[in-house]
Amino acid sequence: MNKDLLLKLLQEVATGRQTAQDAAQQLQHLACEDIGYAHIDHHRSLRKGFPEVIFGEGKSAEQIAGIMERMSSQETVILATRVDPMKAQKVRTRFPMAQYHLEARMLVWMEAPTPTVGKGSILVIAAGTSDIPVAMEAYITAQSMGNRVEKIIDVGVAGIHRLFRHRDLLENASVLVVVAGMEGALPSVVAGMVSRPVIAVPTSIGYGTSLGGLTALFAMLNSCSSNVAVVNIDNGFGAGYVASMINRV
Amino acid sequence: MNKDLLLKLLQEVATGRQTAQDAAQQLQHLACEDIGYAHIDHHRSLRKGFPEVIFGEGKSAEQIAGIMERMSSQETVILATRVDPMKAQKVRTRFPMAQYHLEARMLVWMEAPTPTVGKGSILVIAAGTSDIPVAMEAYITAQSMGNRVEKIIDVGVAGIHRLFRHRDLLENASVLVVVAGMEGALPSVVAGMVSRPVIAVPTSIGYGTSLGGLTALFAMLNSCSSNVAVVNIDNGFGAGYVASMINRV
Amino acid sequence: MNKDLLLKLLQEVATGRQTAQDAAQQLQHLACEDIGYAHIDHHRSLRKGFPEVIFGEGKSAEQIAGIMERMSSQETVILATRVDPMKAQKVRTRFPMAQYHLEARMLVWMEAPTPTVGKGSILVIAAGTSDIPVAMEAYITAQSMGNRVEKIIDVGVAGIHRLFRHRDLLENASVLVVVAGMEGALPSVVAGMVSRPVIAVPTSIGYGTSLGGLTALFAMLNSCSSNVAVVNIDNGFGAGYVASMINRV
Amino acid sequence: MNKDLLLKLLQEVATGRQTAQDAAQQLQHLACEDIGYAHIDHHRSLRKGFPEVIFGEGKSAEQIAGIMERMSSQETVILATRVDPMKAQKVRTRFPMAQYHLEARMLVWMEAPTPTVGKGSILVIAAGTSDIPVAMEAYITAQSMGNRVEKIIDVGVAGIHRLFRHRDLLENASVLVVVAGMEGALPSVVAGMVSRPVIAVPTSIGYGTSLGGLTALFAMLNSCSSNVAVVNIDNGFGAGYVASMINRV
Amino acid sequence: MNKDLLLKLLQEVATGRQTAQDAAQQLQHLACEDIGYAHIDHHRSLRKGFPEVIFGEGKSAEQIAGIMERMSSQETVILATRVDPMKAQKVRTRFPMAQYHLEARMLVWMEAPTPTVGKGSILVIAAGTSDIPVAMEAYITAQSMGNRVEKIIDVGVAGIHRLFRHRDLLENASVLVVVAGMEGALPSVVAGMVSRPVIAVPTSIGYGTSLGGLTALFAMLNSCSSNVAVVNIDNGFGAGYVASMINRV
Amino acid sequence: MNKDLLLKLLQEVATGRQTAQDAAQQLQHLACEDIGYAHIDHHRSLRKGFPEVIFGEGKSAEQIAGIMERMSSQETVILATRVDPMKAQKVRTRFPMAQYHLEARMLVWMEAPTPTVGKGSILVIAAGTSDIPVAMEAYITAQSMGNRVEKIIDVGVAGIHRLFRHRDLLENASVLVVVAGMEGALPSVVAGMVSRPVIAVPTSIGYGTSLGGLTALFAMLNSCSSNVAVVNIDNGFGAGYVASMINRV
Amino acid sequence: MNKDLLLKLLQEVATGRQTAQDAAQQLQHLACEDIGYAHIDHHRSLRKGFPEVIFGEGKSAEQIAGIMERMSSQETVILATRVDPMKAQKVRTRFPMAQYHLEARMLVWMEAPTPTVGKGSILVIAAGTSDIPVAMEAYITAQSMGNRVEKIIDVGVAGIHRLFRHRDLLENASVLVVVAGMEGALPSVVAGMVSRPVIAVPTSIGYGTSLGGLTALFAMLNSCSSNVAVVNIDNGFGAGYVASMINRV
Amino acid sequence: MNKDLLLKLLQEVATGRQTAQDAAQQLQHLACEDIGYAHIDHHRSLRKGFPEVIFGEGKSAEQIAGIMERMSSQETVILATRVDPMKAQKVRTRFPMAQYHLEARMLVWMEAPTPTVGKGSILVIAAGTSDIPVAMEAYITAQSMGNRVEKIIDVGVAGIHRLFRHRDLLENASVLVVVAGMEGALPSVVAGMVSRPVIAVPTSIGYGTSLGGLTALFAMLNSCSSNVAVVNIDNGFGAGYVASMINRV
Repeated sequence: MNKDLLLKLLQEVATGRQTAQDAAQQLQHLACEDIGYAHIDHHRSLRKGFPEVIFGEGKSAEQIAGIMERMSSQETVILATRVDPMKAQKVRTRFPMAQYHLEARMLVWMEAPTPTVGKGSILVIAAGTSDIPVAMEAYITAQSMGNRVEKIIDVGVAGIHRLFRHRDLLENASVLVVVAGMEGALPSVVAGMVSRPVIAVPTSIGYGTSLGGLTALFAMLNSCSSNVAVVNIDNGFGAGYVASMINRV
Repeated sequence: MNKDLLLKLLQEVATGRQTAQDAAQQLQHLACEDIGYAHIDHHRSLRKGFPEVIFGEGKSAEQIAGIMERMSSQETVILATRVDPMKAQKVRTRFPMAQYHLEARMLVWMEAPTPTVGKGSILVIAAGTSDIPVAMEAYITAQSMGNRVEKIIDVGVAGIHRLFRHRDLLENASVLVVVAGMEGALPSVVAGMVSRPVIAVPTSIGYGTSLGGLTALFAMLNSCSSNVAVVNIDNGFGAGYVASMINRV
Repeated sequence: MNKDLLLKLLQEVATGRQTAQDAAQQLQHLACEDIGYAHIDHHRSLRKGFPEVIFGEGKSAEQIAGIMERMSSQETVILATRVDPMKAQKVRTRFPMAQYHLEARMLVWMEAPTPTVGKGSILVIAAGTSDIPVAMEAYITAQSMGNRVEKIIDVGVAGIHRLFRHRDLLENASVLVVVAGMEGALPSVVAGMVSRPVIAVPTSIGYGTSLGGLTALFAMLNSCSSNVAVVNIDNGFGAGYVASMINRV
Repeated sequence: MNKDLLLKLLQEVATGRQTAQDAAQQLQHLACEDIGYAHIDHHRSLRKGFPEVIFGEGKSAEQIAGIMERMSSQETVILATRVDPMKAQKVRTRFPMAQYHLEARMLVWMEAPTPTVGKGSILVIAAGTSDIPVAMEAYITAQSMGNRVEKIIDVGVAGIHRLFRHRDLLENASVLVVVAGMEGALPSVVAGMVSRPVIAVPTSIGYGTSLGGLTALFAMLNSCSSNVAVVNIDNGFGAGYVASMINRV
Repeated sequence: MNKDLLLKLLQEVATGRQTAQDAAQQLQHLACEDIGYAHIDHHRSLRKGFPEVIFGEGKSAEQIAGIMERMSSQETVILATRVDPMKAQKVRTRFPMAQYHLEARMLVWMEAPTPTVGKGSILVIAAGTSDIPVAMEAYITAQSMGNRVEKIIDVGVAGIHRLFRHRDLLENASVLVVVAGMEGALPSVVAGMVSRPVIAVPTSIGYGTSLGGLTALFAMLNSCSSNVAVVNIDNGFGAGYVASMINRV
Repeated sequence: MNKDLLLKLLQEVATGRQTAQDAAQQLQHLACEDIGYAHIDHHRSLRKGFPEVIFGEGKSAEQIAGIMERMSSQETVILATRVDPMKAQKVRTRFPMAQYHLEARMLVWMEAPTPTVGKGSILVIAAGTSDIPVAMEAYITAQSMGNRVEKIIDVGVAGIHRLFRHRDLLENASVLVVVAGMEGALPSVVAGMVSRPVIAVPTSIGYGTSLGGLTALFAMLNSCSSNVAVVNIDNGFGAGYVASMINRV
Repeated sequence: MNKDLLLKLLQEVATGRQTAQDAAQQLQHLACEDIGYAHIDHHRSLRKGFPEVIFGEGKSAEQIAGIMERMSSQETVILATRVDPMKAQKVRTRFPMAQYHLEARMLVWMEAPTPTVGKGSILVIAAGTSDIPVAMEAYITAQSMGNRVEKIIDVGVAGIHRLFRHRDLLENASVLVVVAGMEGALPSVVAGMVSRPVIAVPTSIGYGTSLGGLTALFAMLNSCSSNVAVVNIDNGFGAGYVASMINRV
Repeated sequence: MNKDLLLKLLQEVATGRQTAQDAAQQLQHLACEDIGYAHIDHHRSLRKGFPEVIFGEGKSAEQIAGIMERMSSQETVILATRVDPMKAQKVRTRFPMAQYHLEARMLVWMEAPTPTVGKGSILVIAAGTSDIPVAMEAYITAQSMGNRVEKIIDVGVAGIHRLFRHRDLLENASVLVVVAGMEGALPSVVAGMVSRPVIAVPTSIGYGTSLGGLTALFAMLNSCSSNVAVVNIDNGFGAGYVASMINRV
């Protein structure tokens, strides 16, 4: 439930189009709805500016579709992350308004195109081809939350000149999301070139001592550039979410 | 070298008060000065909006004072972190204009009081008494970089009601820095209450399975709140720096 | 073999309905029975107040059914944990009196409804939807061992107000079992609200730095609340078992 | 502030010996007192049945004495843990009523001998001589919280017969605290002999692969006995605290 | 090639039944034979008293059969470990003289029953049912190498009295192999009861903090009994091999 | 108490030189003596063939001397390990019969020279100069327990030819103790040359990825030679003890 | 694009066979080509002496074939690593000039046989049969980059005499690549015998404490031989590449 | 003993200036000299082209001086690493010809200036000021072994433009040694710019998740540049040694 819907409800009460009792019941119901396998936190979009996001891993297509249906009555945008193609197809059978983004493995439903609320633009950079899914999760998340988003793909530090060709994009971004696996060095280099906050996302790409992304994570936390903060391994969604929050400050 | 100093230099050339040749020499020298044990990156304040910060650990008082002296000719604010009291006293013998903040273990020099450039205010929260030094490092850093900063101390999750008494401060902050050791749970709880970016700082406080702060770090990266990004263990400076960057977006 | 069965046997000897020799042979046989792939410890219910529990993982349906059959002659309640649905179906073909609890993945057989022996009530709390299987293992275990058990599901720390709605349940419980994955923060918050022992159960839910549950485990061991003790990752059964023991003190 | 003190205050209001306004001010002040370096949570003994305990490590003698003084006006018992002998001496110069327990490294102050509130008795067992300090921390904590406590020292599994000589003590305890370092095997063996909850405390005693107590901790969490729950490495205080909570169920 | 075969060859040269040149060629060929995917070390049985053992994991049935064929011309006993049932069946199609031990997952070929060369007897003890495969690998290895071997299964420390019933077997063994997963406590208890060398084998049985056997391994290395040495996780073969070596000292 | 002392006591009873009652009292007292900070297990030499060994680390000189005095009345040999020179001097002030071995950091007391009871000889090999203290601990332990012991020092795998010069010693040993830090490769190479059991001792020598000896430990457990068993990091005493046990099989 | 192709293009401009404008366009296009899922770095062979190598894992056969096609217009040799047989077959359907090396799991395309540019010869040594795939990846890489390459297979340290038979090959090599899993000891032994740089490659072969190759890696980094440098676990390609670079110094 | 000294000795025998017997004795003595606490491997300079290097850590000044004296009779250059200033002073009292390099913590003795035997030049790069000691160890080692060596200090990736100013030095080096702590990103960036082998040296500089250099090490092993090989944490000596070997190929 976003603020607009709440205001509309209250105005209906104020203008007598709805009794206070009915409105109270609706509000109580909205706060936290128990649908058996989950407590949907309908107040979150009021409290936090964006509704709860559905983490698709480990949920069945039926559960995802069910939660989306309940939420669609009260929200104007719904995101579901980590949904594989087969599950997405099943969800869309029941909830066909949702759009599926294959690379990002996300389902997105919007009542109407989200208006742009972010102040500047967010730039998503991926070090290598294999980091694309995580980068796209950040990209779609930031876009769905009402931001202008740009992206640069495959500009790892082994050929650092490829990055320098995009100096304009770098300097015009308000926030940067930098996605990298293996040695996780790209965020340090990028952050050294800009005066903006950089959200670094380690990925589990690599083998041997990449340790499922821990090496990239630790390298990013040890960045010799000070304008870097980090999210969990492969957490493209979280990076896009934090970047959106920053872009509204 | 900040933008103002650069503009002044260029205007002197434009107005003939200084030859182009002299200015070129000055600029080249300013870009990157080799003082034996370090390359001072004088261009950083131009490129990144804030000069290099001196990491005091492992540097002698002489080295710190030396770098401060060089920088003071071209910058308007200088920070040195991780300076213990004895070393601070020695630095101040040679460079008495620097002010020492005991709790934060920082030396700060400002040509003049920093004007407030941050848009909103930054709130620094510390879970426990032992987390104060790290929290104060974030506090002084953010303040020195031109932000309004507030703080709340000793509001850990074992007595969560203490936190709720400060709901106003929480809701009015533009960015929050949350410092916690042991189980590192506070950032999740705080982030669940606000719609702003939260920078979480794990500390090495604890024993046994706190693993020198790794447990708090990992807990924060696994936060079930999405508006959380994390910096290195005990890195109060980094949190204050990123928060400042965010507060200027 | 529980105390009642033993008393009955001894009374039969005392009243001459059975010779001492026959009874001795039965008792010796009962103490520890070798059925090839296991030594069934029939004395455990005498010594520890509850019979051995069958750990279903890695045992075939035939082995589980075989052990249940042997035990059913001497016990009044039998539990088998970590039994997947397909295996459960096979066991029930051979041993149809066992009831299967799908969410808890447990098989339970009772000669008669277990009388309530616990003094107060046990409250099981799960942080998220994905923690339900582990929470239900604790729930069914505690229930089968003769306790009144309540449960609250999906009240993680990112929306801590959901927890506060259940203050009554929290304050009336004698022992609490709190199940959480990811950052494992819920037990600390709950324990800060009550004056009762809290058994924390970390789950392997999460990704990246959740490290298969180690992060939640370590966070719980570092709880800043003192009334918390911890069991192994995903060990819902152990938590239910210890809580039962506590509820009889 | 315990319940008795609260009742007395309210009766004074009821009988007019004190105005409601004065009482309100006192209560507000009592709830949470800020003494600069800490927020003392005076309501904890109301909420949790026992006042906050002072973790002495990293606090100066002055700070410990200061907190004790404030608390002594509102509590009837105060504990400070991890206080080394030299610091203890200094605290006692300023706060001489506190008694120092050398082996447990604890300071204890009681207005009057604590009445026994625990139902049964608590048995503390230490595997080896080096585990004594941790075991004594549990012992003194449990005793100060109003329990009958017994102890057995130096009965490690390499000479398991030493343990069997104490079968009576084992069987009569309501709760057992078992402290062990190195391979951490003792809690499993003890728990296999009793039908009571066992709180296992790993210690950092050992070298090489003892990994500072992690090996003992992990072994205890993997106990093949089900009536075992675990606290953090070297956390004798926590074990004594949880055992007390259990002994009041 | 064992010593007997070598002596026979040399006697044939001595008695003129074979020329020195032919014998030399045979010996050179025997020392180290290259069959494409492996160098068979035919001298090992001369140098070490027992031929190379085939590690079946990662080798195809064809490769195993091929190596067995080559070895059978020069050895009197051949072992292949870690052979699953399907692969074993294929090997036996081509090399039908090999016998398959299902529980131990081993293929054994002997020209004739191995004479008993070990001095005393070896006792193999397994803590739980799930440890049987590893224990049987040790059992079959020790038996194939010419030792009298006994075994006790399912006598874990949670019911330590089960172990005491076998005191005779324990005291009569020359060497003991003790196999345990989870907390790995059994070798310490066993070693405390005997004056013989104990070879401890950690297994990967367990979950959560069993860490794939590392916890049991570290616990065993930290044993408070001094007569314990340890082999790799799940390395039943190595334990049986070392025990055989010890039994010949 | 060794077997000879026990026999003597029983013969005195048999011949009337001592009453049964007196002997019983002595025996009971001998079994397990409580001296405040330790339970001395006087029966261990009966049960295990050698008395308890005093682990000196963390014990005061007074405690070590005290335990030695008590034991000296009932044993013929006493060992104390990990005793630094200063502590040793203090112990010898009170218990001057003890001999101090500086390199091994051990105190040894013998009533009379230990008769040789081991069958063959034990060979101790150290990879480098820095491994000498651990190797000497093994050497003195094995010698004190009645074995012929040889040693070879500084023959690491970077100059493997140095090892080959000692082929005779290698081939004549019954048991080998091989001590190595850093990459821990020596036991594999040695074990490949002999048909005897090899006890490998990893040391904490090295830096960086030696990880305090874990790398050497893991390498030894992964030895491609099958006749290797391992003890804890720096546990020279344990290696000498196990080797002694093996040499008596 | 190698230097020869560049020279040819420039000569065509110089001789008027091509306009400067056309050449500029070609060169710009060549520098970095975006084909949707990758930025092909066509300048790499100019800058680094060898074109980018395709890491086949996680790329589809279509993607691999597509990249090979683009590169084949500008390069004279192309390598793709980590290509399984089924994928290789598909690639070769579309790009049949590529040759597949099964053991090395590599696809290689050469316009013409690579001329030998390395100065000396490279020797690849594998400790065991299971290490062959990694060793062959190094072998094929080095060969494709224009080096004479030799190999020795299955000469682990448990039978070190097998290595000594190849002393000639060892002494004649300019660079050595030594591949080993398990305890990773072979590089130390080999490096102790030669005065040439040794590139050590740890493999993930082993079980239990081999920790997926980390043990071999750490052992190699701790080598007591100084002429050893190490690459990532299973990184045969990297070892072959570095060895090639060294062989051209 | 280097080749020149050996030739001279043999010529003296050939020309009758020395008897064969005397020479034999000398040679045997030279091969491997036992001086109590070490076996000096005098043949190493023959076998490996450079004498053994003394690892100073854990050796007394007397031991270091003693070994230097023995070696000086047969070698023309001697290195001792990890010698702190106080120990260096003591060594030089007894062996004054040794020169001490404070930054590198090394003692170097040369009979005469080492002739340059390396083909090209070696470039040593340090990311930060704190990495200087490790970089200087590499520098002095390479120089002492007869190479032209250059160095660049303080050019970390947070200000990557500082590196680009040194493009000439980078392109003219035959081998590069790159030293970095924290996130360890510099070797990847440098290696992406050159076609020469890069030896990466992780340092223990950093805090929190730098994990004593493990993060930098793992990042370097995961480098997306293929011409990188790695040595142990802080092992500047090893890097200089390997680089020297490479520069002679």
